[in-house]
Amino acid sequence: MTKQELFENIQRKKSFLCVGLDTDITKIPEHLFDESENAVFEFNKAIIDATADLCVAFKPNLAFYESLGIEGWEVLEQTVDYIRENYPDQFIIADAKRGDIGNTSAMYARTFFGNMEFDSVTVAPYMGEDSVTPFLTYEGKWVTLLALTSNKGAIDFQLMKDKSTGDLLYEKVLKTSLNWGTDENMMYVVGATKAEMLTDVRAIVPEHFLLVPGVGAQGGSLAEVAKYGLNSSCGLLVNSSRQIIYASCERDFAQAARTEANQIQTEMEMILKQAELI
Amino acid sequence: MTKQELFENIQRKKSFLCVGLDTDITKIPEHLFDESENAVFEFNKAIIDATADLCVAFKPNLAFYESLGIEGWEVLEQTVDYIRENYPDQFIIADAKRGDIGNTSAMYARTFFGNMEFDSVTVAPYMGEDSVTPFLTYEGKWVTLLALTSNKGAIDFQLMKDKSTGDLLYEKVLKTSLNWGTDENMMYVVGATKAEMLTDVRAIVPEHFLLVPGVGAQGGSLAEVAKYGLNSSCGLLVNSSRQIIYASCERDFAQAARTEANQIQTEMEMILKQAELI
Repeated sequence: MTKQELFENIQRKKSFLCVGLDTDITKIPEHLFDESENAVFEFNKAIIDATADLCVAFKPNLAFYESLGIEGWEVLEQTVDYIRENYPDQFIIADAKRGDIGNTSAMYARTFFGNMEFDSVTVAPYMGEDSVTPFLTYEGKWVTLLALTSNKGAIDFQLMKDKSTGDLLYEKVLKTSLNWGTDENMMYVVGATKAEMLTDVRAIVPEHFLLVPGVGAQGGSLAEVAKYGLNSSCGLLVNSSRQIIYASCERDFAQAARTEANQIQTEMEMILKQAELI
Repeated sequence: MTKQELFENIQRKKSFLCVGLDTDITKIPEHLFDESENAVFEFNKAIIDATADLCVAFKPNLAFYESLGIEGWEVLEQTVDYIRENYPDQFIIADAKRGDIGNTSAMYARTFFGNMEFDSVTVAPYMGEDSVTPFLTYEGKWVTLLALTSNKGAIDFQLMKDKSTGDLLYEKVLKTSLNWGTDENMMYVVGATKAEMLTDVRAIVPEHFLLVPGVGAQGGSLAEVAKYGLNSSCGLLVNSSRQIIYASCERDFAQAARTEANQIQTEMEMILKQAELI
């Protein structure tokens, strides 16, 4: 998917919501296990059907699928195929946080872009250029590079200040990676828990898309994120996982997920209108 | 496995070799595909049988298995089970370079320590404490944390100097992580391509085991690594992957792998004797 196509999807759907499919087998409604041999996929399918018109992206987190072993990988493949077949305008992100030496990162790239039809994969920057660039060789595919994450441990290293430049580590990651890709094939993870830091981020990467986790369950505010993070192509994908997919653990889980997604989409529509992007 | 058990294995086998099972389906001998439906596992099995008495650890790199889809995960599970059943004294490392927010890292930990019987998993430190500590809650299991890697991109961020302390990022990772675990449940990846930097590493983590990649194909010297890295419990696992497993791509591949492993083990035995560790 191109950046322009992603922006057009945002305009058409009046939403920059990404639904995180962090599907935990211990948290999904009991009745699904009685009714299906493949409860995790049935859960995903219901969530996808209930939210696809309200979001522009889905983001399965690999850890939840890997923890189920081979069956989990089957569900992941089924989920990606289901989205591709039924909602071809969705941007699908493998939240895998991979990254290894060059020839090994090339193997990961083949997994997510060759074997499976993801649009993007999240990559950890610690190992530098050759751990990231193999993912950039696939036409129309994207790297979503970790910059400033939304978890507690983000402060341990990401805010370390460079003695020679004064840049924080996450700023150095942003600046250095500008030599590896463009705003047409790279986006960045920037946590919403420190929305005002988006000003510094936008000073370095004004045109890039940002994938923003941490709105909702982790405490970030959508209005704050939009205030500091919007650009002329929207430039934001705001992720919500638990708040949407576990809105109810009863039979009405899909409807409850839709209600949550709808609330977020309504707020997003207002934000896009105020910014004159739609 | 405890640190003491690992050291005793090293003493008994006169080796601190780790064989990297980076099994690339495009590089294994042709005849295996004619003779088996499961050529990748047959390759691993032959390499394991040919080298198990010369090494103390095996390290499958997950990327090579994931790139084969569900079949690859089956081969990975078969490989770990095969080592566990036939060579129970081997330390098995999942070279997965995982790391995510706390609840998600807990899922990865379950994958490698709960579902599969790995002894350790490599973890990337970029996301900080809560991305690492969930792996430390399993008794007898280890985190192998990336500190200074052996690839070209290692210089991009790992050598950034902290303005307030003067520490390089990899040194800050070492120092900070001392608050998370001990030399009984953490070891560190430190690349062999800069062996003299092991002096700085040993100043911070004198007692910990180090997993050292980059000897052989990537140009590091075993003698140099031992000179700067050995401690009173050996404290080193030196990994070799391609040099051993692709020593030949003909019918004699397992014997050729054994010859390579044997050369390394012989050098290690001499090093251990000189250091009076055996």
